[in-house]
Amino acid sequence: MKGVILDIVPEARLIDISHEVPPHNVRQAAYLLYSTYRYFPPGTVHLVVVDPGVGGRRRPMAVRAPSGYFVGPDNGTFSYVMACQSVEEVVELCNPRYRLPHVSHTFHGRDVFAPAAAYLAAGVPVAAMGAPMPDPVTLPQPRLELAEDGIVGEVMHVDRFGNVTTTIGQLEWSGDELLLEPVAWAVRPDRRQAGEHHRDGAPRPPGPFKAAEAAVLAGGHQIVGLRRTYADVRAGEVLVLVGSIGHLEIAVREGSAGQRLGLRLGDPVQVRL
Amino acid sequence: MKGVILDIVPEARLIDISHEVPPHNVRQAAYLLYSTYRYFPPGTVHLVVVDPGVGGRRRPMAVRAPSGYFVGPDNGTFSYVMACQSVEEVVELCNPRYRLPHVSHTFHGRDVFAPAAAYLAAGVPVAAMGAPMPDPVTLPQPRLELAEDGIVGEVMHVDRFGNVTTTIGQLEWSGDELLLEPVAWAVRPDRRQAGEHHRDGAPRPPGPFKAAEAAVLAGGHQIVGLRRTYADVRAGEVLVLVGSIGHLEIAVREGSAGQRLGLRLGDPVQVRL
Amino acid sequence: MKGVILDIVPEARLIDISHEVPPHNVRQAAYLLYSTYRYFPPGTVHLVVVDPGVGGRRRPMAVRAPSGYFVGPDNGTFSYVMACQSVEEVVELCNPRYRLPHVSHTFHGRDVFAPAAAYLAAGVPVAAMGAPMPDPVTLPQPRLELAEDGIVGEVMHVDRFGNVTTTIGQLEWSGDELLLEPVAWAVRPDRRQAGEHHRDGAPRPPGPFKAAEAAVLAGGHQIVGLRRTYADVRAGEVLVLVGSIGHLEIAVREGSAGQRLGLRLGDPVQVRL
Repeated sequence: MKGVILDIVPEARLIDISHEVPPHNVRQAAYLLYSTYRYFPPGTVHLVVVDPGVGGRRRPMAVRAPSGYFVGPDNGTFSYVMACQSVEEVVELCNPRYRLPHVSHTFHGRDVFAPAAAYLAAGVPVAAMGAPMPDPVTLPQPRLELAEDGIVGEVMHVDRFGNVTTTIGQLEWSGDELLLEPVAWAVRPDRRQAGEHHRDGAPRPPGPFKAAEAAVLAGGHQIVGLRRTYADVRAGEVLVLVGSIGHLEIAVREGSAGQRLGLRLGDPVQVRL
Repeated sequence: MKGVILDIVPEARLIDISHEVPPHNVRQAAYLLYSTYRYFPPGTVHLVVVDPGVGGRRRPMAVRAPSGYFVGPDNGTFSYVMACQSVEEVVELCNPRYRLPHVSHTFHGRDVFAPAAAYLAAGVPVAAMGAPMPDPVTLPQPRLELAEDGIVGEVMHVDRFGNVTTTIGQLEWSGDELLLEPVAWAVRPDRRQAGEHHRDGAPRPPGPFKAAEAAVLAGGHQIVGLRRTYADVRAGEVLVLVGSIGHLEIAVREGSAGQRLGLRLGDPVQVRL
Repeated sequence: MKGVILDIVPEARLIDISHEVPPHNVRQAAYLLYSTYRYFPPGTVHLVVVDPGVGGRRRPMAVRAPSGYFVGPDNGTFSYVMACQSVEEVVELCNPRYRLPHVSHTFHGRDVFAPAAAYLAAGVPVAAMGAPMPDPVTLPQPRLELAEDGIVGEVMHVDRFGNVTTTIGQLEWSGDELLLEPVAWAVRPDRRQAGEHHRDGAPRPPGPFKAAEAAVLAGGHQIVGLRRTYADVRAGEVLVLVGSIGHLEIAVREGSAGQRLGLRLGDPVQVRL
């Protein structure tokens, strides 16, 4: 894929975000992209190929958004980054001019997506690459229900250190209190059945709360109080903090919270205020 | 190695193809290079150091070929890419001017090969770097025997997903039929003992055959019919297809064919037409 | 981190030395940096973030030295490279102008160290980034005691092949003899209690010695004679040689000396002359 890109646009700067997404794990790819894309220069082309449906009917797609471009299979990989900004264009990559001359049935990363990403980096407009695609596949909304007296979310990612990131964000410190500015997928439970959460934007979150008084329930454990950093507890102790992407995170200092609390992707996490 | 290269040619573009070749596995390095080199820009310098014989009598070498340059130990790593094209020059890297001032006995990647690759990228002619080397080490030819009624090959690679690539290629779809344009190491069994296969080039392959009627035998299993892509079968099902480098490949959709069929490097694979 | 760097200095060349330092293993990070830094172009900015104390009281630091710059947490990571050269400036990175606008409590690699490294690469003087820091944290000196009749060191690193690098260096071949030019942390045992080894520089080493007559004791084994390279013994045999950074190394040809001799970081290694 990199050879193909450099053959088209020799001055491209190539950065690997991750090669460690487990095979076919679209949801983890979506999370990794969500947690990193905003730190790249404006106009960056993000190429993500986790592609269990390669060669089948899933469509190849490209997205133009305020933060830059996204290129890959239409399987939900871009759900989270698209929910966070006003997408400008979505196209199905069907123009053969922006593919390799011979397209295999099993490696579209090399034959379809790498050339598309390279031509975007070289300045070809996304509209030239295919037809508008109004209905991209989206992953289920990550669970995040807000109410006056608490928050219910779920495990969104467990990293290689065993730190557990939840859907509960964006949290910001303000003195000893925490403010919650909910991310795109936040839902108020009383509006859930009415399905209103897509129509009127993210719901109002609970007001600021005392970090020391919040109780977090996860994996059968209750942890009282949010800390600022790992160094606030002793080695081996469980803590809850605001992680590096502004989400509530459960960790064990110099240990693995994933193992200690038995937490896995999708497990519920609750905050009682 | 990368520090050494950038010190000599700061504008070099460095791409890692793989750091996951098992120690001393020259044959796997040769396969990875064969499966990727043609996708890089013309003139690319390929630097490959799988080097069990470092410090011994194995020679350091550089190759100039139509696709670009190859630099590394003379242990067969370049056998497959050299078999596929008309090599223009092969030299033993013996000119001390294109090495680091102090050459260790254990890390020629850094002290000999990285400087040579950098100077080639900087435009130094390969002939300036050493003496012609007429007799590079070559790996055994991968097995591929062609006849009117069938093909016998072997497992050439098992990737991290468990997909099994065979020596049987190049296969190309033409409607419902497959054409076989044999790769450099194809042999006709009736010419095998006469040793003619080196002299008169690749033998004539069998004619086009119906993909649906071909039977593939591997690891004690028989699979009838070649598919176009993973999505043609259900998750967990074994299939045979034309892989991303045009070779016959055995796979399990969202699973590991290597494990399911117990296939390893060198195991025989047969196609009955 | 790479996105942050390229956003500040788009023309930066980014090289990964390693992503395989075990979590929190500052000593291994210090070793890897020590074994590689001198091969990078002068002025290179080395960014190393092994950071068990992130968010706590450990300080963020930058170093200017003849070989280039070092940026990371003040936890000893730079001990070995600082011991090998005359450091010119050490500052605590406290100027908010050279950080991201929002600094998390858990990922200073992205929010503090990547911006600092980028601004250094862009030409901002190190003195502009913070206040002088006279007392950086240092790791314990690696053990290396020199005497007329022998040398006592310890295991400094075990690589992924199982090759065991010791603190005993710099060794250089001179015909059949070896010269020892001791590294920065060498100590003469008779001066040990007087604590003189910091004041008068590295002590005089023993004179040149016959490689064939030296006896190396490690992990309950005795190996007589130093070899030049792996190829001097048969596959599976234990050998002692001068490794790629000029230190005494214990290896098994096409095998793992770490496993065979049960050697781990800090285990003693003795040379009897």
